[in-house]
Amino acid sequence: MNIILIENQELNGDEVVLEDHRASHIVKILRSEEGDVLKVGVVDGLRGEGRIISIRKKFPHRVILKLNIHDQPQPEPRIDLILALPRPIMLKRILSQVTSLGIGHLYLINANRVEKSFWESTLLMEEEYRKHLITGLEQCVDTRLPTISFHDRFKPFIEDFLPERLARYSHCLVADPSGEHVLARCIDSSAERLVLAVGPEGGWVDYELDKFRKCNFSICTIGERILKVDTAVIALHGYISACFDNT
Amino acid sequence: MNIILIENQELNGDEVVLEDHRASHIVKILRSEEGDVLKVGVVDGLRGEGRIISIRKKFPHRVILKLNIHDQPQPEPRIDLILALPRPIMLKRILSQVTSLGIGHLYLINANRVEKSFWESTLLMEEEYRKHLITGLEQCVDTRLPTISFHDRFKPFIEDFLPERLARYSHCLVADPSGEHVLARCIDSSAERLVLAVGPEGGWVDYELDKFRKCNFSICTIGERILKVDTAVIALHGYISACFDNT
Repeated sequence: MNIILIENQELNGDEVVLEDHRASHIVKILRSEEGDVLKVGVVDGLRGEGRIISIRKKFPHRVILKLNIHDQPQPEPRIDLILALPRPIMLKRILSQVTSLGIGHLYLINANRVEKSFWESTLLMEEEYRKHLITGLEQCVDTRLPTISFHDRFKPFIEDFLPERLARYSHCLVADPSGEHVLARCIDSSAERLVLAVGPEGGWVDYELDKFRKCNFSICTIGERILKVDTAVIALHGYISACFDNT
Repeated sequence: MNIILIENQELNGDEVVLEDHRASHIVKILRSEEGDVLKVGVVDGLRGEGRIISIRKKFPHRVILKLNIHDQPQPEPRIDLILALPRPIMLKRILSQVTSLGIGHLYLINANRVEKSFWESTLLMEEEYRKHLITGLEQCVDTRLPTISFHDRFKPFIEDFLPERLARYSHCLVADPSGEHVLARCIDSSAERLVLAVGPEGGWVDYELDKFRKCNFSICTIGERILKVDTAVIALHGYISACFDNT
């Protein structure tokens, strides 16, 4: 936890009372004292500092912070991600990892090789998945939550929903080991905001790749090595970030 | 398991008998039949095909393959990694992930913020860590094992061991959020083989960064976001791969 995150409704003027795992973290991990100043942010709001004006070190832990928060969040991420719904245990890790790396919007979609049972996971409820986004923000010292939408049918997503959203992207890419283009060559100096589609374990089927092509996506590759989805998503994020830094 | 990997000592002419988890994988996951042809490779050797000439589908599973292996492994990775020894549970995942992404050599070293107990993990024994490298190769369809060396004292590593190895690298980089240079700007068209140093949770201490600087490492960053080590290693690998693809 590199920043203490607070929900807007917890604010009481410029003070906040913490009585949950955040208070325990401040007492037990940070071993803070009254008067100490901590990094603090408001979820989907500003970042700044919180001075401890009261701390109860015995269980149940309790910390009162006086806030001074006037700094902007990290710059808005330039990458949105379309992801074939992965196995829930893998999705948990991906959610916090891509949040810490920085993405704007995550489209979780169905695909031929997505197991149907994945759509029944409780992780798809906001109160569940939001925890993992918060963990990612606490790690990377940001306050800006990615947004998520779920699309349990591929065809309506790609034919009806997606086309209306494409105007916001300078580049639309599908990552696939079979890709016709080296990914780095697909990102030019006009790159502003990009959407990247990553398939399920086993990859996209031809029908899906064709549908993406018809939406003007380029099918790109970062090499012949077949990667697990969680490795691929993180490596691709790093890869694209380098392309942005190069342009 | 996208390739069946065989140890050299298991070969009997051009045949091999499988009686362990690989046989079970062929029977239960691939649901193969006699006559089917599978992707096969020899660890640290060639890749090719294996035709099933006998298969016992009842437990205990048993498969005999007739091999035809004449293809080279994936190209030699151009990235070596210096990694402050992570927590064993995280190291397991990193080992298979960086193997599937492709690294040549992994230097696991001590650092101020490495917990001493990590050095006592059984994962540091070859018979243990090698399993995770093999898992990475099975994923990415390669046969070339990364090599690993362990260095439980930082100073002898950086003063005595490392300098003799540096001639093999065109670029020596340390990744740190405090880095003075954008990583993409540190990799130019002379890039051939690169060594990247990634610190422990909490980062390198100033003394360690100074020591790397004295060895002519550049301290680089991919942004202000603080990442967990496992996320950072994978994202950095992707980032550097993009720089190679761009030069």
